[in-house]
Amino acid sequence: MSIFSLVHTDAVKAALKEDLGHGRDITSEFLLDDGTNVTCVMNAREDGILAGIELAEIAYNLVSDNTLKLTRHKNDGDALKADDKILTITGEAKLILSAERIGLNYVSHLSAIATKTAEYVKAVEGTNAAIVCTRKTLPGLRTLQKHAVRMGGGKNHRFGLDDAILIKDNHIAAAGGITPVLDRAKDAGHMVKIEIEVDTLDQLDEVIAHGGADIVLLDNMPPTDLKEAVKRIQGKMISEASGGVNMDTVRGIAESGVDLISIGALTHTVKVLDIGLDIE
Amino acid sequence: MSIFSLVHTDAVKAALKEDLGHGRDITSEFLLDDGTNVTCVMNAREDGILAGIELAEIAYNLVSDNTLKLTRHKNDGDALKADDKILTITGEAKLILSAERIGLNYVSHLSAIATKTAEYVKAVEGTNAAIVCTRKTLPGLRTLQKHAVRMGGGKNHRFGLDDAILIKDNHIAAAGGITPVLDRAKDAGHMVKIEIEVDTLDQLDEVIAHGGADIVLLDNMPPTDLKEAVKRIQGKMISEASGGVNMDTVRGIAESGVDLISIGALTHTVKVLDIGLDIE
Amino acid sequence: MSIFSLVHTDAVKAALKEDLGHGRDITSEFLLDDGTNVTCVMNAREDGILAGIELAEIAYNLVSDNTLKLTRHKNDGDALKADDKILTITGEAKLILSAERIGLNYVSHLSAIATKTAEYVKAVEGTNAAIVCTRKTLPGLRTLQKHAVRMGGGKNHRFGLDDAILIKDNHIAAAGGITPVLDRAKDAGHMVKIEIEVDTLDQLDEVIAHGGADIVLLDNMPPTDLKEAVKRIQGKMISEASGGVNMDTVRGIAESGVDLISIGALTHTVKVLDIGLDIE
Amino acid sequence: MSIFSLVHTDAVKAALKEDLGHGRDITSEFLLDDGTNVTCVMNAREDGILAGIELAEIAYNLVSDNTLKLTRHKNDGDALKADDKILTITGEAKLILSAERIGLNYVSHLSAIATKTAEYVKAVEGTNAAIVCTRKTLPGLRTLQKHAVRMGGGKNHRFGLDDAILIKDNHIAAAGGITPVLDRAKDAGHMVKIEIEVDTLDQLDEVIAHGGADIVLLDNMPPTDLKEAVKRIQGKMISEASGGVNMDTVRGIAESGVDLISIGALTHTVKVLDIGLDIE
Amino acid sequence: MSIFSLVHTDAVKAALKEDLGHGRDITSEFLLDDGTNVTCVMNAREDGILAGIELAEIAYNLVSDNTLKLTRHKNDGDALKADDKILTITGEAKLILSAERIGLNYVSHLSAIATKTAEYVKAVEGTNAAIVCTRKTLPGLRTLQKHAVRMGGGKNHRFGLDDAILIKDNHIAAAGGITPVLDRAKDAGHMVKIEIEVDTLDQLDEVIAHGGADIVLLDNMPPTDLKEAVKRIQGKMISEASGGVNMDTVRGIAESGVDLISIGALTHTVKVLDIGLDIE
Amino acid sequence: MSIFSLVHTDAVKAALKEDLGHGRDITSEFLLDDGTNVTCVMNAREDGILAGIELAEIAYNLVSDNTLKLTRHKNDGDALKADDKILTITGEAKLILSAERIGLNYVSHLSAIATKTAEYVKAVEGTNAAIVCTRKTLPGLRTLQKHAVRMGGGKNHRFGLDDAILIKDNHIAAAGGITPVLDRAKDAGHMVKIEIEVDTLDQLDEVIAHGGADIVLLDNMPPTDLKEAVKRIQGKMISEASGGVNMDTVRGIAESGVDLISIGALTHTVKVLDIGLDIE
Repeated sequence: MSIFSLVHTDAVKAALKEDLGHGRDITSEFLLDDGTNVTCVMNAREDGILAGIELAEIAYNLVSDNTLKLTRHKNDGDALKADDKILTITGEAKLILSAERIGLNYVSHLSAIATKTAEYVKAVEGTNAAIVCTRKTLPGLRTLQKHAVRMGGGKNHRFGLDDAILIKDNHIAAAGGITPVLDRAKDAGHMVKIEIEVDTLDQLDEVIAHGGADIVLLDNMPPTDLKEAVKRIQGKMISEASGGVNMDTVRGIAESGVDLISIGALTHTVKVLDIGLDIE
Repeated sequence: MSIFSLVHTDAVKAALKEDLGHGRDITSEFLLDDGTNVTCVMNAREDGILAGIELAEIAYNLVSDNTLKLTRHKNDGDALKADDKILTITGEAKLILSAERIGLNYVSHLSAIATKTAEYVKAVEGTNAAIVCTRKTLPGLRTLQKHAVRMGGGKNHRFGLDDAILIKDNHIAAAGGITPVLDRAKDAGHMVKIEIEVDTLDQLDEVIAHGGADIVLLDNMPPTDLKEAVKRIQGKMISEASGGVNMDTVRGIAESGVDLISIGALTHTVKVLDIGLDIE
Repeated sequence: MSIFSLVHTDAVKAALKEDLGHGRDITSEFLLDDGTNVTCVMNAREDGILAGIELAEIAYNLVSDNTLKLTRHKNDGDALKADDKILTITGEAKLILSAERIGLNYVSHLSAIATKTAEYVKAVEGTNAAIVCTRKTLPGLRTLQKHAVRMGGGKNHRFGLDDAILIKDNHIAAAGGITPVLDRAKDAGHMVKIEIEVDTLDQLDEVIAHGGADIVLLDNMPPTDLKEAVKRIQGKMISEASGGVNMDTVRGIAESGVDLISIGALTHTVKVLDIGLDIE
Repeated sequence: MSIFSLVHTDAVKAALKEDLGHGRDITSEFLLDDGTNVTCVMNAREDGILAGIELAEIAYNLVSDNTLKLTRHKNDGDALKADDKILTITGEAKLILSAERIGLNYVSHLSAIATKTAEYVKAVEGTNAAIVCTRKTLPGLRTLQKHAVRMGGGKNHRFGLDDAILIKDNHIAAAGGITPVLDRAKDAGHMVKIEIEVDTLDQLDEVIAHGGADIVLLDNMPPTDLKEAVKRIQGKMISEASGGVNMDTVRGIAESGVDLISIGALTHTVKVLDIGLDIE
Repeated sequence: MSIFSLVHTDAVKAALKEDLGHGRDITSEFLLDDGTNVTCVMNAREDGILAGIELAEIAYNLVSDNTLKLTRHKNDGDALKADDKILTITGEAKLILSAERIGLNYVSHLSAIATKTAEYVKAVEGTNAAIVCTRKTLPGLRTLQKHAVRMGGGKNHRFGLDDAILIKDNHIAAAGGITPVLDRAKDAGHMVKIEIEVDTLDQLDEVIAHGGADIVLLDNMPPTDLKEAVKRIQGKMISEASGGVNMDTVRGIAESGVDLISIGALTHTVKVLDIGLDIE
Repeated sequence: MSIFSLVHTDAVKAALKEDLGHGRDITSEFLLDDGTNVTCVMNAREDGILAGIELAEIAYNLVSDNTLKLTRHKNDGDALKADDKILTITGEAKLILSAERIGLNYVSHLSAIATKTAEYVKAVEGTNAAIVCTRKTLPGLRTLQKHAVRMGGGKNHRFGLDDAILIKDNHIAAAGGITPVLDRAKDAGHMVKIEIEVDTLDQLDEVIAHGGADIVLLDNMPPTDLKEAVKRIQGKMISEASGGVNMDTVRGIAESGVDLISIGALTHTVKVLDIGLDIE
């Protein structure tokens, strides 16, 4: 997947340089002899879903001018069991150890996101609902975090401020109501999807009456309201539930029939997946 | 703190551009009139410790060419109570909303780290132990995450591969034992601190006998072993405990008398701090 | 419009450096004394629509550390008559002359695009059709060229490969037909608009039968076929005509009732608008 | 020509990223299977002169990590006939299609410049005059546009503000006349060519009397004046005609005997050359 | 001189970041209180010529967001006596000390170049010869080093490989002799100065006979040969002496009547000028 | 040593672009035919120590897309005798000549530093003293200059403001004396080495009494005082002498028994090592 590599190699290079500081790995430099070859294996230490493995490969290639031998055992999106081998790296020990931490930092963070997403996806299995992420991502890591969400079986919402209109309460207030704000939104042109956030069923009715939104965000509604909302929408807009979503509530929300459940925590609250590098 | 701003402004700019994609905030552009002024407040929605507020300020200044009026109510390191005002922003609504998410993404992530660190620091209060972070940071965010750790009362460990030697088991193996590896490490020069990881008290004895390390990392030792280790070290090296540290175990570890307790989870496993922006 | 400036200042800086080569404007350096102040006016020398004026302002601010006095007489999107004043610049002569060419290169090129777009928009006045641009833009100038199209009254189509699916004949062939290709496209998720290109009315019927596209691109069809296509579509998709569009044909195409007429020449074939800088 | 590639690869990379926006080609990603290989040919669809082919090759190599097979049939500067094959690309369909537009945008724009230049060069065949470009180039594309002018048989004038002195009327006024301005220009040193613009034969006489210019720019003079100017110059300076040059006037201007005819429209007013990519 | 600042600010920023490493000045951070204001003076500690003072100012402005008060006492090109004040800086002590070293590193290096150049210029006073630098500059510092040469009263030779042709022996050999190589060089166009290196008077005669060079480089010739060369050239080309130039030989070389004496050591062999920062 | 290459390749690329200006080597372009292959040898023309050879290799690889054949005869740190071959380069003449100057500029400057360092190292042979560099480096070249110092047998001191605390007189004054300043410095944490500068033996005694420094900088002390200082320190701190160090004084200073002698001139006052490229 070379487009991925074209887009993300500069970031991996910057991450390696961040770790190298004034430009050296002094531990490897002083303690390891040139020409010492080893074989290392990146292993899962708990179950999960893999994401970001290509970033680790890019890191190993960057420090070694492609001289390390890489064998990939698992691909992004694959399920991992504890002790599964993910990647075998063979070659100059100094170079492998210099890139070790950056590779693991990427893979363990992104796999954590994929794993968490997959848990939510599993929780809503059999319903209509897709699990989607938000713009609550970590600065500089958005496209990678959104990639990880897809690897976990989730879907992406907006990538940024440029690719869809999301109308919130303050926009409604500024424009003087739901009808005028939706009228204004149309000016954005034929390529732009329009989403509007509503807090009540009454607001929803006004949106339905207008007809000018592609997606309606049902914010912080209890499942009974969500169910009623879905009924009123009649499939004419995509329905999205947000707010108060966790592993305890997500199934109930999904069973309301909404199309999307958006969860900021997929990307902003992450428990690392335990993945390590072992020398064989 | 202008050095901070000199060092981090480019990253904030990149984060804003990541959000602006092909270069526009189309929601603000189509829905808000030029010249609409508002006052917004960044508020804490739960208790914690603030970190990263200057990044939000940089973001607001960047989108507005310094034309927004910013009033800071809390500084990095300050305790936050739910509903505390953190920052008031007054000016062009379009510009405030365009920078809103990036500002919050920084502050809520870094404050989460500071908050978590502070919890650990509190848990070991009265002991000798400092709480320190690791190199298990998110790519591109290391210096900011380490700043957040300091704001929470923790201390930083190595910043990168260039600023200290950390000898692990594989280096010991490669060099043929603890004595030869410590001899080699000396070559790194007078500016470099040398840390060595030991798994057993026997290994520790060999390090003590050699005398050539500044810090000894006592890896995955139970508190009783840690206590014995501290006793044997006799204050001649800095002692660091790592492995298996959580809120249940940290006090026991600290009471062993170690100088440092390092915790990767401070930076790799983060539960966002709830902070929001409200229009007044 | 500071988001614009945040996004485009680096490009203006690069353009100035491209002109400064090894870093100097030797004509100004050797021929003009420091402290020689002048007033210059950027004037239209023919009729048209203005676009890009903020880029000229950014250039003047960059070379002068904001010490030049700028007075804007016309805004992007305004109609220009020959001899209209656009921008007055007062201050150090050396600095004004060093930025002169870059400012004019931006403004005269982008105004040309706006002007050409406006001519097409005028030609289809009273019809349903909007004039839209394509991805046939000049490398590095896409978002600015698309901005100029909007300033001329046109609409933008896709900004890039990431923000909509455009299905062409080879995708149809690769997927085994219109139905399977539209089925695959659905996987891109709820945020993605799907457009499909058809060459014949038969293909159009298959798309209509499937129902899975937001926009249908009617490629190189004569106006009679376009009219029939619009009839069959019944407003259930957005219709776009492309191919063979010029000032002679555009009205006939528009009268077919299509929603969009896309024209690559708006951005790839440009006759500069004559704009100059005069010293008062 | 690897210097070309060293200098321009970063720009091609930026152009690809501009097209990839948030980092993906979603059409290829969802509609094409991995491992689908195709052969595509870049074909001329009208006659002209080729320029920029190496940029297309760089684009194909960047998206594919050099895994696409490229066969070049025509080189920069070669004449193209409609239907001539220019470049054959074989390999992963996804990658070829992701780079298609950027490759074509470069080649069709630069070939247009080369083609237009060649038309002017042909029009003055048999005279002494060389066709040269100006600094009226598109921001970010100057060195490439000037390369295209050379490929069309033209010559380059100044590359930027650093590499020659061009004295215009306002410099003459500021310095107090032709003699003092030429005296000042000498200070620029032995490496710098000095050009001075004159509007009248009287001004020319003053320049000739002084002797301190390498090139004299005869601005907006009718052919009879140009002829007289050339006579008076006696080959002691290079003579350049500018202003009012088009395909109708260029021959007459050239027959005056001037050495150079400079034409801004070569780079600022471009009619794209029709070049396309076809799947075999 | 804002063009200078536009062109060089990014380099100063990079130099500051190089010194800040992982992003902090820990000495100032831990030892100085916020709000401690001081006045510091940059003083000459030996005689010389000043160059690069604007770079120090840029550094102080960058670390302080322009909040330090700067008073310049000497300008680039001014003579310095030991104990002369160059620049007074008043404000936050932390910020002044953080930028101190970078400011001094620039100013003391560039002033050393200006000073050395001035010594050579003085040594040839009364002769026809100008002192010029070469491309033997330090990577990344060329335009600044060449600026310093000018500040010392020297002249610049080529800035790079793009702005003049310099024909050496191997080019002559490759082209088959002086006449064919000069014929080829003409193709570079009317903006390009042509210089040719000769080792003997016979070679010089061949160049004179051809007439196609602007400058002749007389390499490693003794003064008597140089004198004869100048005689033969009869002012029809610029003459440049190089090789074996030092403070003992330069006067003799200059008295041969050559126009230029080029000295690589001006930029590659530098004895720092002693300049320091003192707290008042 | 690929970490070196990862870290420094961007700088070499920038250096090549600095030399290529508007993007071309016009001498090679016009005077040499494509396909002309040559073999060139980089030779030492005087004795010294090699440093920076990998930078020359990177330059040759960058201009040629790795198509030149490089054979390294000497490694960084090796002693060079006049006429020793350092590197043989075979391939396209145009490419070799385009990179020639940048390669030589790096190697001759860095080898000069290594050579000078080695002279000082030799002068103190048999004593306890190591020769160390300072932060008086050339902007943008610090890590390379410090690398050269190591290649000459010296040791590095601080790399930047972030990696150690260096307490000077003004810090002592600001903090109210040696004891309070050392107390504050402790807050920097366990990873930070603390160095304090003293001018007198009395100050030294106060530092010894406190015990809180790792290194004491004995500034501008005569050898007798240095000897006394070493005696009082009793090996409990590292001792460093600085000020007034030259080839005449260094041995005497070293014989005082100090651990380190720091010399700014190693990097700020450099006499180039004569290294050239010859065509075979």
